[in-house]
Amino acid sequence: MRGSVVGDGMAMGEAVTGKGRELMSHIAEIIAVGTELLLGNIANTNAQELSQTLSALGINVYWHTVVGDNAGRLREAVERARRRADILITTGGLGPTYDDLTKQTVCRAFGRELVLRPAIAEQIRARYERNLRAPMPENNLRQAEFPADCIVFDNPVGTAPGCAFEEQGVHVLMLPGPPFEMRAMLEGGAVPYLRRLSGDVIVSRDIMTFGMGESRVEELLRDKMERMTNPTLATYAKPSEVRLRATAKAGSVEAAEAMLDPVVSDVRAALGDIVYGVDVKGLEYACVSALRGRGLTLATAESCTGGQIAARLTAIPGVSAAYRGGVVSYWTEMKAAVLGVPSEILDAHGAVSEPTARAMARGVCELTGAPVGVSVTGVAGPDRDERGVAVGTVYVGLATPEGTFCRALDLGQRRRDILQNLAGNHAFDLLRRWLSGLPLSL
Amino acid sequence: MRGSVVGDGMAMGEAVTGKGRELMSHIAEIIAVGTELLLGNIANTNAQELSQTLSALGINVYWHTVVGDNAGRLREAVERARRRADILITTGGLGPTYDDLTKQTVCRAFGRELVLRPAIAEQIRARYERNLRAPMPENNLRQAEFPADCIVFDNPVGTAPGCAFEEQGVHVLMLPGPPFEMRAMLEGGAVPYLRRLSGDVIVSRDIMTFGMGESRVEELLRDKMERMTNPTLATYAKPSEVRLRATAKAGSVEAAEAMLDPVVSDVRAALGDIVYGVDVKGLEYACVSALRGRGLTLATAESCTGGQIAARLTAIPGVSAAYRGGVVSYWTEMKAAVLGVPSEILDAHGAVSEPTARAMARGVCELTGAPVGVSVTGVAGPDRDERGVAVGTVYVGLATPEGTFCRALDLGQRRRDILQNLAGNHAFDLLRRWLSGLPLSL
Repeated sequence: MRGSVVGDGMAMGEAVTGKGRELMSHIAEIIAVGTELLLGNIANTNAQELSQTLSALGINVYWHTVVGDNAGRLREAVERARRRADILITTGGLGPTYDDLTKQTVCRAFGRELVLRPAIAEQIRARYERNLRAPMPENNLRQAEFPADCIVFDNPVGTAPGCAFEEQGVHVLMLPGPPFEMRAMLEGGAVPYLRRLSGDVIVSRDIMTFGMGESRVEELLRDKMERMTNPTLATYAKPSEVRLRATAKAGSVEAAEAMLDPVVSDVRAALGDIVYGVDVKGLEYACVSALRGRGLTLATAESCTGGQIAARLTAIPGVSAAYRGGVVSYWTEMKAAVLGVPSEILDAHGAVSEPTARAMARGVCELTGAPVGVSVTGVAGPDRDERGVAVGTVYVGLATPEGTFCRALDLGQRRRDILQNLAGNHAFDLLRRWLSGLPLSL
Repeated sequence: MRGSVVGDGMAMGEAVTGKGRELMSHIAEIIAVGTELLLGNIANTNAQELSQTLSALGINVYWHTVVGDNAGRLREAVERARRRADILITTGGLGPTYDDLTKQTVCRAFGRELVLRPAIAEQIRARYERNLRAPMPENNLRQAEFPADCIVFDNPVGTAPGCAFEEQGVHVLMLPGPPFEMRAMLEGGAVPYLRRLSGDVIVSRDIMTFGMGESRVEELLRDKMERMTNPTLATYAKPSEVRLRATAKAGSVEAAEAMLDPVVSDVRAALGDIVYGVDVKGLEYACVSALRGRGLTLATAESCTGGQIAARLTAIPGVSAAYRGGVVSYWTEMKAAVLGVPSEILDAHGAVSEPTARAMARGVCELTGAPVGVSVTGVAGPDRDERGVAVGTVYVGLATPEGTFCRALDLGQRRRDILQNLAGNHAFDLLRRWLSGLPLSL
């Protein structure tokens, strides 16, 4: 994902506290349409994601507006937006039902006709009937109606396409509401459209770190971050992971990349081996490419993470070259019966212990034939385990041809999902450090 | 979670397309102030939380607006809001620095003086000097200035207090931007203020379904949905799951619940056994409570879902009463060596086949001692498997004391993560149907 210009989605529990600067040019307003937003059923993450992307393109966002599925109020929002912005992006209200009103309402506001595009109607019908194996209700054809003379954006992950047109210097882009559809169309359709509006290109690099808090990362880089105007450097944090985004604006991709290279080097020099990659999606991706690079395969043995490590690995297409599979030994009996953890270890040290973590990692290697095994055993809560071990106590094991290693952690009393995610990150960090020949402890 | 009044968060990939009607009363607009929102550094979770709370109080939220730390645009937003709403809630811009402009700007818009409250100034000074052990900078005194004749809301977790006043029938409430300060002041100050404005309560029930598309669900319920005004009924869809939210407004929780019971019964009657629960968080929760109810335990054997089913189960606190663990047999060799799938089956039918799915489910029961096992084998893509089986081909197996069952699926060519999620949902659906004595096929 070198030279990415698109912001990525929010991961679970991401506590983003971005610090950055603005690059000047167009003015945009984002109008989200959907009663579910006004009821508080969902947060307006689409506006956040669009804002990140527009900022990276050098477009200023001055307004977010949210209205319900109500034609009058949507019309009012559109009329206002076209007077104070020159890029107007709507999300939501493109679906097939009676309260999906965005295209009609925008067309009325801009005096454009709504026209059926027969080729798109046939695509929508074919996709519907292939996926749902039932005749398509005729109201779905509304999704094939578009403002006259617009550009249609394909929806690779849903049925409702989006579109864009220009009217008297105002660019209107209509994107779907479901976040993963919005994201796909943003990358595939809206970003290329918007990039043409701006002479310069904006290129970003994401420098990924694990193992240091955001405030310490900022302390180490503050002087640099405050002095920089182009490229800029901003931090985005989730628990235990900090992503640094370096962004450059230049006349060409090559020129922007040449500006970014020294920033990446400087950050690496300042932060050392907590940097696990550049433009890598996560620790598990770094591990899989290092495994493939070394021709090794992995197996996993999970207790408190309960399959999350396996699920993160198997979310990666083509992972079978590096990952054989694993065992979720949620019950202690499975640690003995399936993974072969000696009952003396379980009796003497308990299921949540360093000897158990080591034996689990070795056991899953033996079971699967994989040369490398990682294991996690710990207490994710909400309660202590039956031996009284505290919530947040986690042992991460690593079995390799060079020996078996263990990282003992006290992650504190946190929410179950955060603890499981953090424990998984530590397992991946231990693995990537061994794969890269780095010191294994943080 | 019976009688919940709070909307839930977004699950991964949730494609929410809410359809419903609104209940009438006060009209509120939420104005969030902060450039960090427009840069996409944070999502506007304050607006979500306020919306949930206001809905529960029977107050309609018609608009969310976000502006940066800019007096002109904030003034424009306030002027507009006071004309179209009678409750105006701002978040952010109450701090001590030059770009904290909310109180001044709101006062100018409403023609109120900004007055220093000496007692509050002393409180702020004492708290500052106690916490930071340094003399307070004088600009912090701006946090003790308030509109004339307002109610001040204490800030129990920060320095900037909030406030509320009424002007010509419009109620203005100003709350801080940091989410935990906003939440504390909402509970301690704003909710009591707002409750005095509204006599009614709002109660919701979420009716959860799996196995029918949103447009078909709507077709079956449209007449009812369009006729209803109180209670209301709205749909929210993700791929293959539709949640129906019934919402009633009444003088008491008991009265609202009495209005909701017949709606739930009617929906159940219209939709039949695709309804898997009411106020249940997801299919895996329905399965775990049914397993516990029957005193049964489960094990899992996953290929293409790669640990996602295990991860969804182990995200549930206390799941160990119902879930023993499982195997992620990503490599075919693991299906034979660990799960004991006979090599004749693998050779004759392939890893993605009904006989393999059945043998995996039986194998994991034998391995773990669990009476019930579910298995998934399929092709999640992006490419066909080595035997040429198409992406989206999935077999879900279920081994029980009563016999072994299988659901064969063609889920079509979809994105890997969507296919994995759908395959998991089908596994849970097959399980919950068996546990509830329902027909096993959809």
